[in-house]
Amino acid sequence: MPVGPEARLQELGIVLPEPLQVLGTYRLATRHRDTVYLAGHVSVKLDGSDLITGKVGADLTMEQAQEAARTCALYMLSTLRAELGSLEQVAQILKVVGMVNTAAGFVLMASVLDGCTNQLAEIFGDAGIPARVAVGMALPMDVAVETEMTVALHG
Amino acid sequence: MPVGPEARLQELGIVLPEPLQVLGTYRLATRHRDTVYLAGHVSVKLDGSDLITGKVGADLTMEQAQEAARTCALYMLSTLRAELGSLEQVAQILKVVGMVNTAAGFVLMASVLDGCTNQLAEIFGDAGIPARVAVGMALPMDVAVETEMTVALHG
Amino acid sequence: MPVGPEARLQELGIVLPEPLQVLGTYRLATRHRDTVYLAGHVSVKLDGSDLITGKVGADLTMEQAQEAARTCALYMLSTLRAELGSLEQVAQILKVVGMVNTAAGFVLMASVLDGCTNQLAEIFGDAGIPARVAVGMALPMDVAVETEMTVALHG
Repeated sequence: MPVGPEARLQELGIVLPEPLQVLGTYRLATRHRDTVYLAGHVSVKLDGSDLITGKVGADLTMEQAQEAARTCALYMLSTLRAELGSLEQVAQILKVVGMVNTAAGFVLMASVLDGCTNQLAEIFGDAGIPARVAVGMALPMDVAVETEMTVALHG
Repeated sequence: MPVGPEARLQELGIVLPEPLQVLGTYRLATRHRDTVYLAGHVSVKLDGSDLITGKVGADLTMEQAQEAARTCALYMLSTLRAELGSLEQVAQILKVVGMVNTAAGFVLMASVLDGCTNQLAEIFGDAGIPARVAVGMALPMDVAVETEMTVALHG
Repeated sequence: MPVGPEARLQELGIVLPEPLQVLGTYRLATRHRDTVYLAGHVSVKLDGSDLITGKVGADLTMEQAQEAARTCALYMLSTLRAELGSLEQVAQILKVVGMVNTAAGFVLMASVLDGCTNQLAEIFGDAGIPARVAVGMALPMDVAVETEMTVALHG
C-alpha cells in the first residue's frame, strides 16, 4: 500500500510551518471544484521568524537559494492543508511557477527551483512532480524566491 | 438580499471603461466550461486616452501606482462583462497575477496590487478576493502595471 | 470540412521538433480532466542543436526574437502531441504566457510574442488564439524567449 503524503511527512520528520500571514487584499488559496489555486508564497525561515531575502547569485549561494525554494514548498503545503484539512486530497500538483530574485547574469533558476519540486516529489511521489516555470525577476520585500501552484484534488 | 456586482458598480458610481484594443494575435479572454482566463491587461487612463507608464518607485508614487493597478481591475471587468454579458455570472475571482514595472530596489509590489484587489473586493465582496501573485518585471510599452486573472462562473 | 491541425501542419510543411529534454524535477505537461498545463518551454533551434539565447533589443533583432518565440510554439506542440497522441484533441488554446529576455528599455514584448501566437493561429485557426500575457524578465540559461500555455481538450 503506498504511503500517503501525511504519513510520508512523518516518515521524513517534517513538521509543516504555520501558514504565512496575509498582508493585503488577497487569499492564500482559492478553490473551484477540484482545482486549488495558490497565491505566491515567499521564502520564509521555517520557524516563521524572518523572510529569506537577497539576490541569488550575489547574496545567496545556490545551496541557500535551493533551501529558500524548499521553504516555499513547505509553506504552500501548509496553506494547502489549512484549506483542505489534509494533504491526502491532493491528486496531482499540476503546475508550479517559481520566481527567483536573480542577480544580473544569474541564469540557473531551474536548479534553484529543484529545491522546491524535489521536496514536493519526496512527499507526494509522482503526484508531486508538476509542469514548472522557472524565471527571474524582482520580488516583494526582496525575498530570494517566490512560488505559486495549481493543484488537482481527488474527484 | 446581497447587492450584485452590477448594482454595486452603480452604487459606487463606477462606469466601466471601454475594453482595451487588441493589438496582436491574442484575445482579451477565453472560456472553458465555467472558467474564464483573461489576457494581461495593462494600466490605461479610464477615458482610454493614454497608457499609464513609468517605473514604480522612480517615475510614479505609490498612490499613482495603486491607481494604475485600479485601472487594470476596471479594464479586466470591462473585458469580463463584454465576454459574459453581465458580471452577475462571476462566482469567484480565483487568481490575480499582478506585474509591476519596478525601479531598481522597489519591493512594495504587494501594496501596489492592493489597488487592484481592493477595487475587486469593493465590487464583488468576498468573491472578489483572489489568490494573488505580486511581482516586478519589465512591461510592454513601459506601462506601470499589468494584471491578468482567472475567474470562476456560477455553474 | 475544416482542416484539422495535423493535416494543417502537413500543408504548411512543418515537422515538429523532438520534445525538449527535462533537466530537473518537473514534467513538460500535466493534465487534469480536459485541461492540459504546459511547463515553460525555452527557445531552442528546431534541430535541437542549441538554445537560442541573448537579450532581445541588444543581442537579437525583432525578427530573430519572433523566430525564437515561434520555436517555443513548435516545442510546446511537440510536447502536446507526445502527451495526447495527436493535436486533434485540442479544443482551444486558453492562455499563453510569454516571457522575453529583454534588454534594458526594450518594451515590444507583444510583437515578439506574435511570433508564437501567429504560428499557433496558423495551425489551429481561431482555436489557436489565446488570452496572452507578454512580459520581460531574466530567463534560464539566458534564453531569448520562454512560453507556457494552458490548453482545453475536446470533452
